[in-house]
Order: sequence, then C-alpha cells, then structure tokens
Amino acid sequence: MLSAEELSRVVIVLVRARNPNNIGAVARAIHDFGFRHLRIVSDYTVPFATARSAVDASEVLSDARTFASVVDAVADCTLVVGTTAVGERALQHPLRTLQQAAPLIHSEMAREDLGGRVAMLFGSEKTGLSNEELSHCNWLLTIPMQQYEDARHPSMNLGQAVAVCLYELFRHSGESLAEVDDPAATAGERERLVTLLTEVLRTSGYIKRHPANCTEEQLRRLVMRMGVSTGDAPVWMGILRQVLWKFGETDAG
Amino acid sequence: MLSAEELSRVVIVLVRARNPNNIGAVARAIHDFGFRHLRIVSDYTVPFATARSAVDASEVLSDARTFASVVDAVADCTLVVGTTAVGERALQHPLRTLQQAAPLIHSEMAREDLGGRVAMLFGSEKTGLSNEELSHCNWLLTIPMQQYEDARHPSMNLGQAVAVCLYELFRHSGESLAEVDDPAATAGERERLVTLLTEVLRTSGYIKRHPANCTEEQLRRLVMRMGVSTGDAPVWMGILRQVLWKFGETDAG
Repeated sequence: MLSAEELSRVVIVLVRARNPNNIGAVARAIHDFGFRHLRIVSDYTVPFATARSAVDASEVLSDARTFASVVDAVADCTLVVGTTAVGERALQHPLRTLQQAAPLIHSEMAREDLGGRVAMLFGSEKTGLSNEELSHCNWLLTIPMQQYEDARHPSMNLGQAVAVCLYELFRHSGESLAEVDDPAATAGERERLVTLLTEVLRTSGYIKRHPANCTEEQLRRLVMRMGVSTGDAPVWMGILRQVLWKFGETDAG
Repeated sequence: MLSAEELSRVVIVLVRARNPNNIGAVARAIHDFGFRHLRIVSDYTVPFATARSAVDASEVLSDARTFASVVDAVADCTLVVGTTAVGERALQHPLRTLQQAAPLIHSEMAREDLGGRVAMLFGSEKTGLSNEELSHCNWLLTIPMQQYEDARHPSMNLGQAVAVCLYELFRHSGESLAEVDDPAATAGERERLVTLLTEVLRTSGYIKRHPANCTEEQLRRLVMRMGVSTGDAPVWMGILRQVLWKFGETDAG
C-alpha cells in the first residue's frame, strides 16, 4: 500500500477547465482514491469559484491552489505527465498507456530520496492541452479506448478521465480487501443433503418418474454442483426436512 | 483483444439514476470503451428523456432500453453483478474487487457456447442499490477506494464509477480467459426457480416456521448462491414441481 504521504506526492493539475461540475467531480475522485492535491491553471476564475462554493465541496477543493500558468503550477514537481487522447495532434513526446505509466509514476513517488512530486496535467474539456502546455511535460499518458473507424475521436469526460487515472494509480498500490466468500460445506454435510434430497425425491414420486436421472451418483453430483456453503447447508437441510414432514403429515391425514 | 461482438455482451443497467448528466456520462463511457448496451430501470422517466434529448447524445443513448424492474432488465443475462460501496450495508453476497471481478466477467463473456450476457448494475446516486435489487445479483463488485477514519463513506460519482469499471474490463481484454464448465442459468430461469421454491416453502409450512429467513430477497439470494447451471435449472424445477404435485395430491386425498 502507498502511504498517505506517498499519495500526497501526486498533484492533479487542471488546465483551463470550464465546467464547475467537472472540477467538483475531479476533486471527488482525488478524495475517493486517497490523493490530496489539486491545482488549477486558468485566467478565468469563475468555474473554480463556483465548484468551491458547492454545498458538498470537499477538503480537496478548499485546499486547491490556483496558478497563472502551467510553469508555475508544476515548478516543485520532479515528473510532469500530460494526458492526451491519442491522435489529436502530432505527438512530439514519448507516449505511454495508463497501464505503462502507473509503475513509472509510482517509482517517482517512492524514490529513495523521500520521493518526487508528480504532476498529472489534464487539459480543457474542448481542446485538451495546447502544444505550449504539453511542452512542460516529461512524457504523455493516454487512457486506452476503443478505436472507431469513423473520424470522431473518442475523448473522455474530464471527471471520468481523472477518476480512471487515479484508480489505476491506486490499484497498483496493493489489494486491500479480503475475500468474503462463505467457505464450502464439508463432504459430510453434503452427504447428509444428498440423503435428504433422495428421500424427498423418493417420497414425492420423482424417482419413479425419472429413474434415469436419479442414480445415487447423479444426485450426489447434482448436490455437488450446488456448491453449498457451510452457512447454507443447514438451511437446505431444514427445507428438505420440512418438505418430508409435510409429506408425512398429509399422508397420515 | 475482445471482439466487438464480445464487448456487446456486457449490459450496463442503471437503476433509478436521477441525474441526466450522469446518464449521459455513462453512455459516453460505454461508447469510449467500445461497449454498446445501456438499460435503464426507473419509474421516473424524466432523467433518461432529458439525457436522450441532449445535442451530443450518443448512439448508445438512442439505443438504450427502459425496463420497469430489475428482474425484467436482467432476464436474458447469465451473470448479474451488482456494484456497491463496501460497508454501506451488511453484505450477504460474495464481494469482489473490480480487479478480481474483471477476469470472471471476461470468462462469462467468452464462454464456448458463444458466451453469456453479463449485466452490471449501478444504483441511484443517493442510495445505491436496495437490498431487493441486490438480491438479483450473483455477486457484488466494489471499486477499491481509500478508507478514511471519519465516518463519511466515500462513494463515487455514477459516471466515474461506470468509467472506471469499463476501463478495467477493457484493459483486461488482452488477457487469457479461463474455461467454464457448464454455462450458468439465465436470470429468468433462476427467477422461476425462486418462485417455485417459495411456493414449496409456503405450502410446506417452512415460511411460517422460519419467517425471518424467508423474505423474497433472502430466498432469491439462496437460489443465487446455488450457482445453478443452465443444464441443472430444469432438473431443479422438475423436482420442485413434483414436490408441489405431491403436496396437492396428499392434501386432496
């Protein structure tokens, strides 16, 4: 797992974002995946001010800093990665997929000298990053997407693009969840189920009607394929016993 | 790589989504990653109608289908996966991280009998999926997020959550696929099993004796955990019908 301190070495830089909702969504993704730093580059302050004034604005937004230019926004960063939808322009930078990029970004964050600060630049919704803005980047990152034959190039919603990138960085930091699958029933429990089921099938007349499907092995395999857990085994036994009880009661009545 | 035909086997199901922008963003992510099918479950039609009327509405949106209930929306699907933010509720389903889930979903899509249809359910922005809605799921998927100590649980923006999930599926599309023995029953077949089992439990008196274990959702999950294959589904239905016949015969006698 990356430590909180390591996660704080990633800085998301939004350049000329126009939509306050997108800025809010980006801040939310930063929080969700445990990152902290948002920087805004824009000479148009309204979208950021609007996002910040939202009732559910996060700490990420209130701590976000604004800069007049990309060069200022990335001045303290050791690695600057631009994001792009491939094909938008002639690329003059090395281009890596998000998957290829993530380990490189991690290495930078975990450098022996206590780590570098990594900026990830995202351009405006309409135009992406300009050539001038791209020129501040060490290399470029692209989220792999489906290539369609028609000319319209796919480009992701800004909030979605940031979420996908941060997911990939977070994902690499180690799986944190345990399995909660219920353990399988024991062979003994399964065998008791087979016995009860056989009794239900016999008493109900099912075996007489379908003798070809009802050998002992076939019924055992049928129960085996249920994949009964140790939690469910007593439930199924209770159900089968109740059915047998009902057969008996009505036969007697 | 997955073929276009294989990608079309994934169905994104939005349950009670309220925000037209989110529905639009979901449709965009579906298109970006090469998927095709969107289904909407809601009795409130305005958000979907609004999303569909947007100037940049995609083909995914114009092809999207609406359903009155989850059971209808997933009836032709062989694997139904619910999405959840962990910790929202006591989980009564197996829970997998997105990374653990992706290969299982791929296997289902690539089954030798031309493949199963996989539904991925996303709940409303405010409340997620209800217990009733979750009961239609084979298992649950969660996007791993940072766990904070304060009580406020992280929950992702709907459009971002779908984008991250589809990115992960798309990302995996080059990886090799596991073998699956017997294909799973469809959700429609499973639902008929639930109905028959419920009738058996009611008639036998089991429900009266164990009312706390017999809500509709609990019985659906019990059947779900059986992991019934398409080969075994008619066998179990035949068994349950025979039991019901026997109850009727003996009651009448």
